[in-house]
Amino acid sequence: MRKAALLLPIAALVLFPQVLASETHRFIPQRFYNTWSFAHPPALRIKPGDRVVTKTIDAGGVDWDGKTVASGPNPQTGPFFIEGAEPDDVLVVTIEKIEPNRGTAYSGSLLAPYAVDPTAIAARVDREGRRATWNIDKAKGVARLAGTDIQPGGIELPLRPMLGCVGVAPARKEAIATSTPGAFGGNMDYAGLNAGVKVMLPVSEPGALLFIGDGHARQGEAEAAGTGLETSMDVEFTVDLIKKKPIGWPRLENDTYVMVLGSARPLLEAFQHATTEMQKWLMADYGFTERGAQTFMGQALEYEIANVVDPNFTVVAKVKKALLPRM
Amino acid sequence: MRKAALLLPIAALVLFPQVLASETHRFIPQRFYNTWSFAHPPALRIKPGDRVVTKTIDAGGVDWDGKTVASGPNPQTGPFFIEGAEPDDVLVVTIEKIEPNRGTAYSGSLLAPYAVDPTAIAARVDREGRRATWNIDKAKGVARLAGTDIQPGGIELPLRPMLGCVGVAPARKEAIATSTPGAFGGNMDYAGLNAGVKVMLPVSEPGALLFIGDGHARQGEAEAAGTGLETSMDVEFTVDLIKKKPIGWPRLENDTYVMVLGSARPLLEAFQHATTEMQKWLMADYGFTERGAQTFMGQALEYEIANVVDPNFTVVAKVKKALLPRM
Amino acid sequence: MRKAALLLPIAALVLFPQVLASETHRFIPQRFYNTWSFAHPPALRIKPGDRVVTKTIDAGGVDWDGKTVASGPNPQTGPFFIEGAEPDDVLVVTIEKIEPNRGTAYSGSLLAPYAVDPTAIAARVDREGRRATWNIDKAKGVARLAGTDIQPGGIELPLRPMLGCVGVAPARKEAIATSTPGAFGGNMDYAGLNAGVKVMLPVSEPGALLFIGDGHARQGEAEAAGTGLETSMDVEFTVDLIKKKPIGWPRLENDTYVMVLGSARPLLEAFQHATTEMQKWLMADYGFTERGAQTFMGQALEYEIANVVDPNFTVVAKVKKALLPRM
Amino acid sequence: MRKAALLLPIAALVLFPQVLASETHRFIPQRFYNTWSFAHPPALRIKPGDRVVTKTIDAGGVDWDGKTVASGPNPQTGPFFIEGAEPDDVLVVTIEKIEPNRGTAYSGSLLAPYAVDPTAIAARVDREGRRATWNIDKAKGVARLAGTDIQPGGIELPLRPMLGCVGVAPARKEAIATSTPGAFGGNMDYAGLNAGVKVMLPVSEPGALLFIGDGHARQGEAEAAGTGLETSMDVEFTVDLIKKKPIGWPRLENDTYVMVLGSARPLLEAFQHATTEMQKWLMADYGFTERGAQTFMGQALEYEIANVVDPNFTVVAKVKKALLPRM
Repeated sequence: MRKAALLLPIAALVLFPQVLASETHRFIPQRFYNTWSFAHPPALRIKPGDRVVTKTIDAGGVDWDGKTVASGPNPQTGPFFIEGAEPDDVLVVTIEKIEPNRGTAYSGSLLAPYAVDPTAIAARVDREGRRATWNIDKAKGVARLAGTDIQPGGIELPLRPMLGCVGVAPARKEAIATSTPGAFGGNMDYAGLNAGVKVMLPVSEPGALLFIGDGHARQGEAEAAGTGLETSMDVEFTVDLIKKKPIGWPRLENDTYVMVLGSARPLLEAFQHATTEMQKWLMADYGFTERGAQTFMGQALEYEIANVVDPNFTVVAKVKKALLPRM
Repeated sequence: MRKAALLLPIAALVLFPQVLASETHRFIPQRFYNTWSFAHPPALRIKPGDRVVTKTIDAGGVDWDGKTVASGPNPQTGPFFIEGAEPDDVLVVTIEKIEPNRGTAYSGSLLAPYAVDPTAIAARVDREGRRATWNIDKAKGVARLAGTDIQPGGIELPLRPMLGCVGVAPARKEAIATSTPGAFGGNMDYAGLNAGVKVMLPVSEPGALLFIGDGHARQGEAEAAGTGLETSMDVEFTVDLIKKKPIGWPRLENDTYVMVLGSARPLLEAFQHATTEMQKWLMADYGFTERGAQTFMGQALEYEIANVVDPNFTVVAKVKKALLPRM
Repeated sequence: MRKAALLLPIAALVLFPQVLASETHRFIPQRFYNTWSFAHPPALRIKPGDRVVTKTIDAGGVDWDGKTVASGPNPQTGPFFIEGAEPDDVLVVTIEKIEPNRGTAYSGSLLAPYAVDPTAIAARVDREGRRATWNIDKAKGVARLAGTDIQPGGIELPLRPMLGCVGVAPARKEAIATSTPGAFGGNMDYAGLNAGVKVMLPVSEPGALLFIGDGHARQGEAEAAGTGLETSMDVEFTVDLIKKKPIGWPRLENDTYVMVLGSARPLLEAFQHATTEMQKWLMADYGFTERGAQTFMGQALEYEIANVVDPNFTVVAKVKKALLPRM
Repeated sequence: MRKAALLLPIAALVLFPQVLASETHRFIPQRFYNTWSFAHPPALRIKPGDRVVTKTIDAGGVDWDGKTVASGPNPQTGPFFIEGAEPDDVLVVTIEKIEPNRGTAYSGSLLAPYAVDPTAIAARVDREGRRATWNIDKAKGVARLAGTDIQPGGIELPLRPMLGCVGVAPARKEAIATSTPGAFGGNMDYAGLNAGVKVMLPVSEPGALLFIGDGHARQGEAEAAGTGLETSMDVEFTVDLIKKKPIGWPRLENDTYVMVLGSARPLLEAFQHATTEMQKWLMADYGFTERGAQTFMGQALEYEIANVVDPNFTVVAKVKKALLPRM
């Protein structure tokens, strides 16, 4: 029954019993964390089906009022303890809303060390790191580079709000810095992690311990300048559980795609993890044989490069749902 | 004037003088090549503005009649000698048509060695390489896996014809096997190299020596099963020259995107080449400053992974033309 | 004065005041740890100059009596709290003795996933993981493969005891699984980490929190079969501190070489870290200019590949002390 | 008989019939090549057992008289056509002498783009490429940096002459630039390719077409500054053939080691090729089973990183002959 639910429209979830009894929690974070770890005390206990209305501060620790309230990088809101979550379950986090809640964002203005040829780094005329400031215009749906010193004619780009970080406590009692993505999710920096996406994470600790943070008003694929448009966010999400379904890597689903996010260095290894997990998913949930899955994937896969700037890089393997067999 | 032309719709090219005098050449290849090299004698001499109506055989050397007429991999149609092409020019190949000209294609049925985790290769139950056959239904616009032994319910996917190979004679008098992509183009295996795309290649030898081949009726991103749907094609293209414009890597343009294709191993290096060349392009042709280009790219870049199966892997850096300043 | 000490023979250390007051601690570990973390309570408090006589269990948690006393991988002896150690100091651990203290060791019998071509993995006739058992003959100084089922004529190799793991609590309050090497040392799996080597580690937490474990009676370079000859060890070491000397990566010194161990994936990045840190060392302590260091390194560097099997790979950059200027 | 010969001391070769009839050729090259290719006309025809006494010019095309006689990079002496060499044979080149034949060499003075962290490139104070000049003192057996502008106290290092390039015509009718190493040998830049080493190369074309060049008076492992001490050389070598023995990668043998040189990017792939080929060698010629070879290799392998600066990087997998079973 759970499995089928993954393919139903989000609205259909209201029919499930635990959702009928669901609560909405309004949670303003007071304390922020710089590691994903089982060791942090739960900030809030919630049940499968519950909704959380909360906020995230920016990657440098600055909140919606412009106050520095935590240290970077990527101080996290949470952890949320999900009642009933046990190792080998899947935590399903449906992102309902991600909306910038202040007027400015900042970004890097140099391409990151591993994003360009080393000879291009050596040849750079101006190599001093400097932040760029952007104005967020929600009415027009765009961000505009403040000032004209960086680019005389200015730069204007559409908003596309996302969360750089959605993660749970890692396996093996590790405590991982919030700059890093992994099997537990974390700082995947995927520009497609927008409102409307369902994020499925492997649970390694009782209660899962969900953290979110690092909102970007927009981000290019690969996060090639080392940041998105970093800002604070209003966030709403609901949680659900799939019991006893061990998965290896974060899975995402939106209206159009099923996706797997693999994180590692080198880039190819992130690609391999995502592809390997996608094959497992297709065989387990979509009726593919071992060879059938591979034959299909060779002609149907799409990929995105989420980031090449974090301690692990992240690659997204995607399959259009319209190409999948109806189950 | 040339620079501006790149942004004009393809139809506008008929206004240029050399196009008015253009010829259409119908060329049925008799001989095929397995290296890109300055040493092969021109098969046809054409002028900037000319159109070529021709055919390609499949990657294994089988033609539109099902006859094996050459050895694999990727036997090439050509070379076409473009009058007036000199080193440091850009050869512009506008692909007008790519259409399968027989009823079947073949593909691999195992994910390629570097496309999955090595532990997944070790764990594979059935590891014997075998070709899958596909039926091409041009009326319905789909390819269907022949038989049900690989996948009981069958597999059906939309056609999206492309050329795996478009290349010119490489620099430094190298002769490169037609399995390999590089700065000269070659076996880039990019699923987006469809009809309607303009391919810009750096010229290294007089006459450029253009080769095409390796048509796929469809291909997943990254060509993860080692092949697309390999088949023979009817191809039409026109050629043009941009004089004295040294470029480092193949550039593509379609209605929506400007793109750069970097090819190398590891995957990250292909990414770096594509990104570095895109910065040069934005600075040279779109009015960006050094820091402005980088600031823009960080929030505007998209990427595709063209292939992770050839001797060099290929990554596509893309920018939506709608986001670029109007020049 | 400290700096000069690094170049003195080990015997000279007895002249330093704090060494005169040094104690010898005999410590039989009762509890073992599977993460490197600031959060573990000190097992023993020691002073700079002190000697510790202790034991390590094998990578699978089996001790000198053949009893399983902990879980793998790489359960650690420690942590040892070094009085006076503060962040930005260097902890100097001089390994005086590493000696197998039981009669057998075990090893892997298949080359590791990333150690061979993926096509070689696919072509493997016998791909089932199995441990090989080795007999340790200290009298003759060799290890002998037990039985003849794996290799009819047997295999005999000289002993060369080493510690796979020497590490301190990592920076940023991370807790890292003991399979992993990093800037904090950890599971570097370097076959040259033998008795007589001085290991210099960057201190990130008060007291440094030193852990050791994962003894190998011998190991090939790169640890290509995924293990050394895994066994329990008698270990003796002394500790010292260099105050206020921030270093980026573990440094080693023996009679012949100065060495830096960089750990990362991909392999090239481990190489880059080791090389970059060596340049810093040569400039800071051996009188080289920026360009002089590079010119020298180009013609003087040697490398070893410590491991290609751990979550980070480890590369050793080495310079013969005989080639260095006398300081 | 051939196989056993590989393990005999070099002197023993005089007992073989074809050696008794061998000739010595004195060959002063007049023309030099910048690709390895089947297409170049033989400069000299020699027989198995023959000795060649010849010269190589430096990587920049300068000869023993200081005259520029060819273009860089790595202009080659040859090709030598070996009578009787056919595809799938092994060409055995025994290097008898490599001796600098002029008083100076040059080297790079900056670490190469991929040899250090990209952040170290960005932080470099002086990033302008400049050659360093070295004086070669054969009497004392050292090279000395000329002048004191690069390093006030000077730099002096022992000579260790080597050939950067030993190669044959590549497979598939490719013509490969002489900057590149591969299965055919080529620009491997291995500091251990000294007098006394036997180089075994897979033959792909009739006559093999042997080229040599790119002598270094000394070179650090990995060639981290992008060059060795580049100079012209007097070279003597003998050739032999092993018929019908297909090998995948260059193999080397000296008094102490058997070695395989794998070349590719990324560095790990070069490592994988060398390791995979070493397993094949141990199984074919040294009596190892599949699992026995792997068990042995895990504890016996050594590695060197030959270069991280050429279009393909080169890794050397080594096994001490003293550890091998007597065959």
